[in-house]
Amino acid sequence: MSDSFPLAHAAHRIAAGEVSATQLLEVALQRVTASEARVHAFTILSIDAARAAAAACDTGPVRGPLHGVPIAVKDVFDTADLPTAYGSPIWQGHRPRADASAVALARAAGAVILGKTVTTEFASYTPGPTTNPHDIARTPGGSSSGSAAAVAAGMVTAAFGTQTAGSIIRPAAYCGVVGYKPSFGVISRAGMKPLAESFDTAGTLACTVADAALLAGVAAGRHDLAAPVAADAWPTIGLFRSDWWDEAEPAQRAAIEAVAEGLRSDGARVVDLAAPAIPWVNALHSEAMAWEAARAFAWERAAQPHALSPKLAEILTRGAAMTPARLEVVWSGLARARAKLSALFERCDIVLTPPAPGQAPLGLDGTGSPTFNRIWSLLGGPCLTLPCGRSPDGMPLGAQLVALPGRDASLLGMASRVEKIVSAMYVPCAAA
Amino acid sequence: MSDSFPLAHAAHRIAAGEVSATQLLEVALQRVTASEARVHAFTILSIDAARAAAAACDTGPVRGPLHGVPIAVKDVFDTADLPTAYGSPIWQGHRPRADASAVALARAAGAVILGKTVTTEFASYTPGPTTNPHDIARTPGGSSSGSAAAVAAGMVTAAFGTQTAGSIIRPAAYCGVVGYKPSFGVISRAGMKPLAESFDTAGTLACTVADAALLAGVAAGRHDLAAPVAADAWPTIGLFRSDWWDEAEPAQRAAIEAVAEGLRSDGARVVDLAAPAIPWVNALHSEAMAWEAARAFAWERAAQPHALSPKLAEILTRGAAMTPARLEVVWSGLARARAKLSALFERCDIVLTPPAPGQAPLGLDGTGSPTFNRIWSLLGGPCLTLPCGRSPDGMPLGAQLVALPGRDASLLGMASRVEKIVSAMYVPCAAA
Repeated sequence: MSDSFPLAHAAHRIAAGEVSATQLLEVALQRVTASEARVHAFTILSIDAARAAAAACDTGPVRGPLHGVPIAVKDVFDTADLPTAYGSPIWQGHRPRADASAVALARAAGAVILGKTVTTEFASYTPGPTTNPHDIARTPGGSSSGSAAAVAAGMVTAAFGTQTAGSIIRPAAYCGVVGYKPSFGVISRAGMKPLAESFDTAGTLACTVADAALLAGVAAGRHDLAAPVAADAWPTIGLFRSDWWDEAEPAQRAAIEAVAEGLRSDGARVVDLAAPAIPWVNALHSEAMAWEAARAFAWERAAQPHALSPKLAEILTRGAAMTPARLEVVWSGLARARAKLSALFERCDIVLTPPAPGQAPLGLDGTGSPTFNRIWSLLGGPCLTLPCGRSPDGMPLGAQLVALPGRDASLLGMASRVEKIVSAMYVPCAAA
Repeated sequence: MSDSFPLAHAAHRIAAGEVSATQLLEVALQRVTASEARVHAFTILSIDAARAAAAACDTGPVRGPLHGVPIAVKDVFDTADLPTAYGSPIWQGHRPRADASAVALARAAGAVILGKTVTTEFASYTPGPTTNPHDIARTPGGSSSGSAAAVAAGMVTAAFGTQTAGSIIRPAAYCGVVGYKPSFGVISRAGMKPLAESFDTAGTLACTVADAALLAGVAAGRHDLAAPVAADAWPTIGLFRSDWWDEAEPAQRAAIEAVAEGLRSDGARVVDLAAPAIPWVNALHSEAMAWEAARAFAWERAAQPHALSPKLAEILTRGAAMTPARLEVVWSGLARARAKLSALFERCDIVLTPPAPGQAPLGLDGTGSPTFNRIWSLLGGPCLTLPCGRSPDGMPLGAQLVALPGRDASLLGMASRVEKIVSAMYVPCAAA
């Protein structure tokens, strides 16, 4: 589906009568039938409602830039017509009255909601049943596990995700799809279950940069982001190996170096950025998340403490116990780190860096490490990962591009151009 | 009730067995019986559940610093045991599954929830039925209308409110109570209906600075804020007349000058601050709110557009239509204004300024003007208003104190000292 029907083209073709929304949905449902039993991307499929919505698109006026195209929604976004459980037994059977902002805006633009996708527990660390479509013995990453896997398996062309530490970029990289975390605040969080308010960001996973941008742009009401134009001229690229380069697998390091070389060959200026020497920042970011999460889940802690996973319960207990003095240390440390990260952009426009330590790890009891993600969730600027190669085990590897907060349009334009360059090494989107 | 049972003392006295939670609740219910038919502060009273909670406090262990004391909750915070309608017919009869973070933390500390208080429509501009207890022909202010009125009428000693433009500080001033808007982010917004995410802030209204601080400190999990100590030494006070001084009523201007003089007499250094010449900032703040609100209420706009008030519908339509170019102008203008406001604090530690243009206006069809509030909601620092005098019509007037973001503890300590100074001019809290 992905190759024949990218999101924007699909909407155009439906609007032009070349294909019907119903046909497109049935293709998606065939992919679901073929893959879902192995991949477990969905918490619930909304087949009847999706068929009704597609039929309405086929008989009614063109609703908008997503007219008739099926998408999937991570189960931390409220949906008025589908249960929303945030990955927790505490919320099993919960049926919100309203759609989250992103969902309402996507529907208003014509999107057909195929179902809700698996999230880790409250978008934190404890995984659900989803497997990686490229190798079901491996994690798809998290917390946007189901959205990454559904796109990778070709069940939908694009899906909503959220990121607080690394929950869009890492699963996208592990599953060989494009992940886009917009600047903090670009997509409204109304109707999204909070985890850590200072960092929670809604975004998209898709087969292409254009599709990730289109869905995010619609959800943000930002038409300037919805249709990025591949940059004419290269901005200065900063190759950023970070304080954790040694923790990256050799194949991941080689893939990033290869992308840098590919960009140089195309005429880009690529500068080496020194690591900012802030190895302590990931631990502080984790503490700040624990502090905010302890407050965000105050009701769950009080009402149903035993229905929290032991890991999350421990994190929340630790967060709740933080002293004012420790908070001061944490937030002032994070402010210092943010200043150092901002300063990287004095030497470049766009940073090129790993999206994850490497390929998706074996096993489904974890979702991999956000080591290469926390700093960018802290900075609050746009991040985008796109597939750029394969590991020796044949698993996808990604390349992450990052810009300063607010520079989403230029990041997307640049990413569209990078996508063309790396297409030779491109991992086909559909894996299953 | 307010004079005999300030919040902190009440919890101590209940814990010490000097008074029971049940007795305290019955006093509150007598005040409700005496006043609610005129004041209309509550959307719903939770009498049976409150009696059960008070009885549990009287027979069980001491739960925390709010043990057994009745409070009220603005109806934009979710409550698991009470309907939550956000001031809109669209949400009539809605019963959330969970408590908002602030509510859950207050309950865990022993608070007894007496009921939900009237908010304007979605905490924006269209008022509910609440009157000002000092003169029922006048607005109580908004959007935290019911919380301000319930405290002013002595029905509860403290209540939760929220502010996006001026929704805590202005109604507190109009009703002659203390209003405290903490720094942005101090109290978690989980379970609070969003209006404009970049500015929405939870806070408290109470009879005294100590009570406002206690409830906010508990709701934030910040014990350093819960028990402010009156500052030993005066910080430098900046008397800030703003770009809108001429719009303030003569009695309000005189009240602020009198507080400044009172502080000088007590040995404080009070410096005059020049207005920053940003008269355009209020309009930009209003535009930014409209932009964010259009996204926050995307579902309401799509699902039940005719159940929005005409005024809110118009604002949301305007917000939704903003172009990327206009957004750039708005957000960059706000960033410039924020820098100018921050620079005021190079000459002082605390700003003294009006909380409102003057006394509560006549009529219940509006909630007064946020002219003196928007800049501080933009700055994101703590604001506190306390009663400091009366207008010629006998209505309360307040004085607002403001600090830089994060300086909540020092603002509260300073406010406790100011409260002592102005007690001679103090309007007794209970009005009805």
